[in-house]
Amino acid sequence: MSSERAASLSRPLRVAVLASGRGSNLQVLIDRIHGRGKVQIVAVGSDKPQAPALARAEAAGIETHVFATADFGGGRSERDAAIAAWLSGLGVELVVLAGYMQLLGPELLERFSGRVINVHPALLPAFPGLDAVGQALAYGVKVFGVTVHFVDDGVDTGPIILQEAVALPNARTREEVFDALHEIEHRLLPRAVGLIADGAVAPDPEHPRRVLVR
Amino acid sequence: MSSERAASLSRPLRVAVLASGRGSNLQVLIDRIHGRGKVQIVAVGSDKPQAPALARAEAAGIETHVFATADFGGGRSERDAAIAAWLSGLGVELVVLAGYMQLLGPELLERFSGRVINVHPALLPAFPGLDAVGQALAYGVKVFGVTVHFVDDGVDTGPIILQEAVALPNARTREEVFDALHEIEHRLLPRAVGLIADGAVAPDPEHPRRVLVR
Repeated sequence: MSSERAASLSRPLRVAVLASGRGSNLQVLIDRIHGRGKVQIVAVGSDKPQAPALARAEAAGIETHVFATADFGGGRSERDAAIAAWLSGLGVELVVLAGYMQLLGPELLERFSGRVINVHPALLPAFPGLDAVGQALAYGVKVFGVTVHFVDDGVDTGPIILQEAVALPNARTREEVFDALHEIEHRLLPRAVGLIADGAVAPDPEHPRRVLVR
Repeated sequence: MSSERAASLSRPLRVAVLASGRGSNLQVLIDRIHGRGKVQIVAVGSDKPQAPALARAEAAGIETHVFATADFGGGRSERDAAIAAWLSGLGVELVVLAGYMQLLGPELLERFSGRVINVHPALLPAFPGLDAVGQALAYGVKVFGVTVHFVDDGVDTGPIILQEAVALPNARTREEVFDALHEIEHRLLPRAVGLIADGAVAPDPEHPRRVLVR
């Protein structure tokens, strides 16, 4: 991707965001990086018709689309095909999962190979999957953190772009951990998108599983 | 343990260290915390007759013993029984694994329940077991770290006492990671031993898997 991107650095990277919830990460992307020359958020999709993320997108004049579970009798594969067609039609170059609660299937991931990123509230590979913060609290860790990574066909197993840790040795509730992690997410996710737009993110040729960030 | 300890805070905590290698963590314990009133290292054991850790102990006037694999035909269980008898005879209250490359069996761990700690060069539960730093490099993490934890009957699965992270986003070799982690180990391990000696470490009554540090 980085060589493709290098050829087109003169125009903004076309980004889509998929979100299921509040959309606070979407809002940060809109506020800090969208429409400033480097990144254009051209689409926001959700599986939840009532997701506040959709209203945030509309308020920013960004096209939205709902891919509700109820509308896709055929299940994930059919929904993914519809999402992929929509993204392709809009010329999307990078897909950002920002609190998107559906797993993406292999067809979509293959079509957007190396062009889907996710933000996860743990220091992967620790605590993948749902309720990462609850898992970490139950384990009794003293250090929490956030990972931005490429999405592959596993659950939160793709190559890591950025990570940041925070020491919370006395944390006992999800709320206090999320207070710290949201701040980190809101810093790391725009940074990752900006770095990708700059063509500054590439696999290490010697070990492609490791991501080099210039 | 903390209540037992509270009753005896007036005398030093009797500590044994088990080590297989260089003994740099042992040296830090000797230099920073041994014989200053709070902690007395009364024994250093090793499975390796040539371990430099033994010479470090002898130089500090600390009793040593070798429990070499070749001397225990019956395997781990027989060796563990010998270690446990030796530790009990010396009135050891805390066992510190500092680069000890043998697994301890359930009998010894039960006899010293909640009184064996280990230092591990990763942010557990990520990368347990051997070559944690190599595992982390292969995965491509951006944040590394150190964990001091109680030892239970799993491999690096016990309750966490202290953790510290370090961001090394460009690390590519074990050497550069170990340079950073050794410094952290040398800070965390004496701190953990000192906190235990102070009676400042106890399971959270609401969730014993979580360790509270005062």
